[in-house]
Amino acid sequence: MSDGTVYEGRRQAALAKARREARIDAFLVSRGADVGYLSGFSGDESPLLVCRGLACLITDGRFAEQAARECPDLEIAVRTVAMPAAVADAVRRHKVRRLGVQGGHMTLSGQGAIASVLGKCRLLPVGEVVLALRAVKDAQEIQAIRKAIRIAERAFRELTARGAKALLGRTEREIAAELDYRMLLAGADSPAFDTVVAAGAHSSLPHHRPGQSKVRPGQAVLLDWGAWAGGYSSDLTRVVFTGTIPPKLARIYEVVRSAQAAGIAAVRAGASVRAVDQAARAVIEKAGLAERYLHSLGHGLGRGRGNVEVHELPTVARRTKMRLRAGMVVTIEPGVYVPGIGGVRIEDDVLVTARGAVRLSSLPTAASAMVLR
Amino acid sequence: MSDGTVYEGRRQAALAKARREARIDAFLVSRGADVGYLSGFSGDESPLLVCRGLACLITDGRFAEQAARECPDLEIAVRTVAMPAAVADAVRRHKVRRLGVQGGHMTLSGQGAIASVLGKCRLLPVGEVVLALRAVKDAQEIQAIRKAIRIAERAFRELTARGAKALLGRTEREIAAELDYRMLLAGADSPAFDTVVAAGAHSSLPHHRPGQSKVRPGQAVLLDWGAWAGGYSSDLTRVVFTGTIPPKLARIYEVVRSAQAAGIAAVRAGASVRAVDQAARAVIEKAGLAERYLHSLGHGLGRGRGNVEVHELPTVARRTKMRLRAGMVVTIEPGVYVPGIGGVRIEDDVLVTARGAVRLSSLPTAASAMVLR
Repeated sequence: MSDGTVYEGRRQAALAKARREARIDAFLVSRGADVGYLSGFSGDESPLLVCRGLACLITDGRFAEQAARECPDLEIAVRTVAMPAAVADAVRRHKVRRLGVQGGHMTLSGQGAIASVLGKCRLLPVGEVVLALRAVKDAQEIQAIRKAIRIAERAFRELTARGAKALLGRTEREIAAELDYRMLLAGADSPAFDTVVAAGAHSSLPHHRPGQSKVRPGQAVLLDWGAWAGGYSSDLTRVVFTGTIPPKLARIYEVVRSAQAAGIAAVRAGASVRAVDQAARAVIEKAGLAERYLHSLGHGLGRGRGNVEVHELPTVARRTKMRLRAGMVVTIEPGVYVPGIGGVRIEDDVLVTARGAVRLSSLPTAASAMVLR
Repeated sequence: MSDGTVYEGRRQAALAKARREARIDAFLVSRGADVGYLSGFSGDESPLLVCRGLACLITDGRFAEQAARECPDLEIAVRTVAMPAAVADAVRRHKVRRLGVQGGHMTLSGQGAIASVLGKCRLLPVGEVVLALRAVKDAQEIQAIRKAIRIAERAFRELTARGAKALLGRTEREIAAELDYRMLLAGADSPAFDTVVAAGAHSSLPHHRPGQSKVRPGQAVLLDWGAWAGGYSSDLTRVVFTGTIPPKLARIYEVVRSAQAAGIAAVRAGASVRAVDQAARAVIEKAGLAERYLHSLGHGLGRGRGNVEVHELPTVARRTKMRLRAGMVVTIEPGVYVPGIGGVRIEDDVLVTARGAVRLSSLPTAASAMVLR
């Protein structure tokens, strides 16, 4: 393309609409995942200035060659001055008078530093236009998420194919390291977030860090892992059992499994996320375990990676007012946690369609399939 | 401790001073690495409200059990409402009238959301008190960084001990995956950032993502990797050669090696970071390669991890006005990059002392030691 843009129609149209609504001439996109979404650039610390029909990537020497390769049709400004001054230069060059910034990403200090060198140009926070746009995936993005899921599932299948001996006597860390390594060999660019391996009572900590505990026979081992590949994440959780299911967890497992099925069954375009959360929550409440359910039902999945950023829009929670739309990809991951005993969480990734959820992940959930011998 | 704090004297005193100077009653610490530094908490998305002689960790159900274990002496507020409302509750409970927030981390939207529910309490951005504090390491932190370095070096030594065959015919991705896996097995909690493996001409991209290119004989392979362990990062770069050094890189290698030595020699408490940067830069300039040096000399190293956050204070750069202080840990990593040919960067981690730099990393830098046969 020759107009300085690489992004396709829907994204460009949404940004143009946001510019009109906020009455801004240009939009400074600073969140890295958003920059990548709009420009294809895969480096860091390089904001994108989106003007009318033109986009300028403000980067530095470390990324100059990479930016030229990845974004051949963008204006690339390789800064030799501090970031605020480089932004001000680009703003002046493009005669911007009202500059929108990402209120959900720009810090108070960042705003102050830029505002102090902007001259007459005004700086205005704009809502989460790009995050909202990213929530609805196009066909190419869904393919990328499917690939990230296949990679994560392959690593899990390879690990567990060896049966209980793949886990017994090994530390949580060793198991996590193997899962990560298998994902990398299967094509992941990195794990999507810190892999959780929680054996026995540790599984009652939803975000347990793998430690030096060795897995023993008759234990539950919770695995929460995902791959980041081609710019997209997957996010899965399974609880596997070494030989037998601990009696105290058998009923909990079935409650969580039913809750997950109810959540997935409630997913369809137009449904409120509250209603979806409630469909799963009701199963856990009915079983008298409401107080052991410590989080919301799920979250959007896409370009974000890392323990926090992997949680994208929409948040599937009681407090959120939002309706699902076709093309959204969300995790459905209810969990029940009993301190001192252990926890169960089952997580799959589903695509929202008008007719309901399409499960993108394919690992079984039946307890019997999770018993490794 | 019984006063609701877990952090030791220097950190507490610095926060108390910042509270007085900014005339605030309480400081809301929202950056995750800062929260961990002050409280020992290792989870995410849980800000710390630091009042006079008391700290309250605002977390959610996912982290409640973990927070109670990791921070037995803190007040733990497990929120059941949205974050801004939970902050407002804590602020009211502790009768805070002037609340400081981290200007370098709090977003415009975050500020807006909190301010809208704070009632009469005023919200005031405060400078980077904790980042500045974190720049100077205590003995325990230096031990943790040494450990992170040992882990990264062990993985490198294990990989390269097998000679050129550890690299030849393998893809950049496979090599990166092995380096990551070996770090995890050696005790890393995760890689400190995305491991760079860049073979041949790819090494001219300072932040190349490992791809499907296979390493061939007589190539330079740039490795930039680090471990994150016990909350601290290491960050190292070496260029290894499969069999022979490409003639076009031999001179560049020696220039970069001399520049690194000059940079390390200029490090001592009291030196300006500009002078340190200039000491290394002068060597590259004198060799006529100034235009091929695409970044600054180095950065502080500590609790940060990830491609961006691993860069802590102080930035060792031309544009920075700052003096080194005893106890700082910085990377020294000059590089020369020639598109189409390749690049050389050599990176070590050094501790600043009154008498000069103490190299914490121990891998050799001599070109001959980097030739794998």
